[in-house]
Amino acid sequence: DADSTAKPADLTGYTRVRQDLVAPPFAPAHEQVATGGPKIIEITMETEERLIVVDEDTGASVWALTYNGSVPGPLIICHEGDMIELTLRNPEDSTMEHNIDFHASTGALGGGGLTHVYPGEETVLRWKATKPGCFTYHCAPGGAMIPYHVTHGMNGAVMVLPRDGLKDKDGNALRYDKIAYIGEQDFYLPKDENGDFIAYEAAGDDYADSLEAMRTLTPTHSVFNGAVGALTGEGALKFKVGETVLMIHNQSNRDSRPHLIGGHGNFVWETSFSDLPMTGLETWFVRGGTAVAAMYTFEQPGVYAYVNHNLIEAALLGATAHFIVEGPWDNNLMEQVVAPRSFSA
Amino acid sequence: DADSTAKPADLTGYTRVRQDLVAPPFAPAHEQVATGGPKIIEITMETEERLIVVDEDTGASVWALTYNGSVPGPLIICHEGDMIELTLRNPEDSTMEHNIDFHASTGALGGGGLTHVYPGEETVLRWKATKPGCFTYHCAPGGAMIPYHVTHGMNGAVMVLPRDGLKDKDGNALRYDKIAYIGEQDFYLPKDENGDFIAYEAAGDDYADSLEAMRTLTPTHSVFNGAVGALTGEGALKFKVGETVLMIHNQSNRDSRPHLIGGHGNFVWETSFSDLPMTGLETWFVRGGTAVAAMYTFEQPGVYAYVNHNLIEAALLGATAHFIVEGPWDNNLMEQVVAPRSFSA
Amino acid sequence: DADSTAKPADLTGYTRVRQDLVAPPFAPAHEQVATGGPKIIEITMETEERLIVVDEDTGASVWALTYNGSVPGPLIICHEGDMIELTLRNPEDSTMEHNIDFHASTGALGGGGLTHVYPGEETVLRWKATKPGCFTYHCAPGGAMIPYHVTHGMNGAVMVLPRDGLKDKDGNALRYDKIAYIGEQDFYLPKDENGDFIAYEAAGDDYADSLEAMRTLTPTHSVFNGAVGALTGEGALKFKVGETVLMIHNQSNRDSRPHLIGGHGNFVWETSFSDLPMTGLETWFVRGGTAVAAMYTFEQPGVYAYVNHNLIEAALLGATAHFIVEGPWDNNLMEQVVAPRSFSA
Ligand SMILES: [Cu+2]
Ligand SMILES: [Cu+2]
Ligand SMILES: [Cu+2]
Ligand SMILES: [Cu+2]
Ligand SMILES: [Cu+2]
Ligand SMILES: [Cu+2]
Ligand SMILES: [Mg+2]
Ligand SMILES: [Mg+2]
Ligand SMILES: [Mg+2]
Ligand SMILES: [Mg+2]
Ligand SMILES: [Mg+2]
Ligand SMILES: [Mg+2]
Ligand SMILES: [Mg+2]
Ligand SMILES: [Mg+2]
Ligand SMILES: [Mg+2]
Repeated sequence: DADSTAKPADLTGYTRVRQDLVAPPFAPAHEQVATGGPKIIEITMETEERLIVVDEDTGASVWALTYNGSVPGPLIICHEGDMIELTLRNPEDSTMEHNIDFHASTGALGGGGLTHVYPGEETVLRWKATKPGCFTYHCAPGGAMIPYHVTHGMNGAVMVLPRDGLKDKDGNALRYDKIAYIGEQDFYLPKDENGDFIAYEAAGDDYADSLEAMRTLTPTHSVFNGAVGALTGEGALKFKVGETVLMIHNQSNRDSRPHLIGGHGNFVWETSFSDLPMTGLETWFVRGGTAVAAMYTFEQPGVYAYVNHNLIEAALLGATAHFIVEGPWDNNLMEQVVAPRSFSA
Repeated sequence: DADSTAKPADLTGYTRVRQDLVAPPFAPAHEQVATGGPKIIEITMETEERLIVVDEDTGASVWALTYNGSVPGPLIICHEGDMIELTLRNPEDSTMEHNIDFHASTGALGGGGLTHVYPGEETVLRWKATKPGCFTYHCAPGGAMIPYHVTHGMNGAVMVLPRDGLKDKDGNALRYDKIAYIGEQDFYLPKDENGDFIAYEAAGDDYADSLEAMRTLTPTHSVFNGAVGALTGEGALKFKVGETVLMIHNQSNRDSRPHLIGGHGNFVWETSFSDLPMTGLETWFVRGGTAVAAMYTFEQPGVYAYVNHNLIEAALLGATAHFIVEGPWDNNLMEQVVAPRSFSA
Repeated sequence: DADSTAKPADLTGYTRVRQDLVAPPFAPAHEQVATGGPKIIEITMETEERLIVVDEDTGASVWALTYNGSVPGPLIICHEGDMIELTLRNPEDSTMEHNIDFHASTGALGGGGLTHVYPGEETVLRWKATKPGCFTYHCAPGGAMIPYHVTHGMNGAVMVLPRDGLKDKDGNALRYDKIAYIGEQDFYLPKDENGDFIAYEAAGDDYADSLEAMRTLTPTHSVFNGAVGALTGEGALKFKVGETVLMIHNQSNRDSRPHLIGGHGNFVWETSFSDLPMTGLETWFVRGGTAVAAMYTFEQPGVYAYVNHNLIEAALLGATAHFIVEGPWDNNLMEQVVAPRSFSA
């Protein structure tokens, strides 16, 4: 792809900054409206192959393939016109080759063709964010290894903000107070003849069995942030009435349909930030291989469940998170006029 | 959720009216453009657990969980700014707890948190319709009971019209002559070891088997209005050339893709009525957990099949309705120039 | 449907032209902006039932049902306001009845009701293209034969261009250099008790087994242009940097989500050409039973994989094509700053 006769890049006018990536569901420090000129944003990601428990109830586990140890990988944020300069390291104790394909980038299979790192190798890739929107990134080593790595957790999202920030249909600024970065992961965990999930000794040992399970196109789990219940209980996200959340939903492989029970998608960008946001949605759509953004301002306190609204996937496969919102109840929006009571027919 | 220290609702300026709900595929009496000020619309729904035959050919049946006895539950219609005041009753001879989550509402899990009624109980919930669009409602008792109740028929739709009615992209009024309210229901009916559908004695007896069937994510049936053929033959809908139909498609759990064979979606609102309608669609999309609206004006007589255009689901799983249209044929739009005849090659 | 009392069509002002259809992934000769008045475009299609190898590796094969011998059938192109006049022939050595349903047309089940041809029969149907967009056509003989014929390859696409061509949101002309016409075909190939694909002796012999396989809703293959690898290797499409491709994706039965690895959908029409194009998409959506168009201008040389971004379907089921692009690499868009090298932690 890249050829040695190509002209060197012209980096004049760019300022170098470092972005410290953080674990999901959180977002790195960033500006919503860009100040100053375009930036070269330096980030580092290290691949990690680690055994994670997907569901404590059944003991289902997987040798996850990850960027920086989390499923999904960390959220990266930049503005349109910035460049991302990634150092990708694959530690020596890995068992597999990895790489990275950024949907936000242009050429070389999204960088996948230029970033194949074997255990003990590192590489540096720089690419320009020319299109605003939320975009998936994922490992794509080639052939059947592509869905194998992606369905073992090796994916995440980049958000490329417009330089002047998000806007509604009339051009008014839209600002958020917090980001909830949610990666939905479809796992296809092999079972033995008794129907029990198989435990494997090392990363990669489940390869043949996994391919067979993947061909069913029916995941055994579809979880947020790596495990059933990762974002409920202790992991629930906290908000206040009047706060605005930007929900970034990444699904690198399979369609999803997020819904915030008790709330809405006030503004939803399913496609890109160069398209006007859709408004007032009950449920929005994640084309498999896409990251999307949805914005909501809380009007009522209480527990909100954020789910994949295939309710089987939400309740039985794991696709449920909780948002806990504090503040005063508004009886004008909803009122329990008569609490449940006996009646005679 | 609702707390006792909250300020009382301010209901000044609202007029109370009663909406008599009717069985699908029909719509309650309503205005397309609101007259007068905002209304508090009183409705009553009663849960009913009843055995229905899903497919007469195979005898497949289900102990359906319903609102007002029908699958889907009745269509509710209001205008943006109105309030819905629902009395929900669960009769004493029920076997299960039920509640209701309105996607159109705000807070308390869409009202689900405030409406849990056990057999013999009633409750009253009032909520304000702040966002225009078609929205799903469904039972959501908690945990695995959520998809269990939803996939046993306990769902329906609310249409929240803009106060000044529907409009095209240029702001011109769009009016319909009739509504076709269609609920697509995915059933996951358990089979015995011979592959025959199991008959159960009472509602709830299929719980464990159903969860197992649901995990396949592959429905045994996907029917319109509760049964294979409910909207064909005697149940077919009737129209005239020149009439405009508003097709409201509710699917509370699973994606669908409606198509009107021989016609189009002239105007389609997949997201909300606060977004401009899409135009000239061959097939539109229902994000699982969504109700959508599509408008078409008939230009030709004949039989139109309204289907989920996964044609396997249409032809083998039951997702087919018929619209019968009377009027003059227009040879300018289509002409059989040569009827089928023998030819020699 | 068509009745004998209907007024004859008024064909004054139309010019008759002939469109010579070509095999996919290519497009027939056509104008992007219409010159002159409306046209009656005469085309001929012949059904052909033929054994094709779907996957050379496994020997999986199918008695495909086709229009003009290819899967998908040929791309037809016209402008809004034109009429298509199709002669459809079913040769005497066929085993089955066929017909055609054009989603772009109006009435008579899209023409399906007027075009049933038995082996040895021909028919002529004329219909007016009143709505601009890309539209599926497919065989629809009735009942279970509908999904059977469609999932055996009997489908294709019509593109109805606006008379003044495609435009961006601001009304600027959008022109393409080449069309890549891709039909994604979900096959449900029956297996024997050993898990081997069954070979059948003649078209139609797989009917009962196929229906059983189709009920799983899980295809064994999802291929571009009839076979695994049809559009890779020798079949890869060729482009140059700076060229603009219009990718037309037809899926007559099942949802898909195309993605161009290393590129984007600069302009995407998921619904119709009467809606503004969406912009800057990573992955777009094909509602099952839809043809869509996406436009991209290549900025980098190299191999691009065009996939259904359910990566399991892309890598294991066959939904992958290759675009090979020549030209100079642009280090400003992407640069391999450090090639993979060893590092010590
Ligand atoms: Cu990897
Ligand atoms: Cu990708
Ligand atoms: Cu219930
Ligand atoms: Cu819901
Ligand atoms: Cu056919
Ligand atoms: Cu069709
Ligand atoms: Mg680009
Ligand atoms: Mg490799
Ligand atoms: Mg995106
Ligand atoms: Mg609200
Ligand atoms: Mg409960
Ligand atoms: Mg809706
Ligand atoms: Mg029409
Ligand atoms: Mg027939
Ligand atoms: Mg189309």
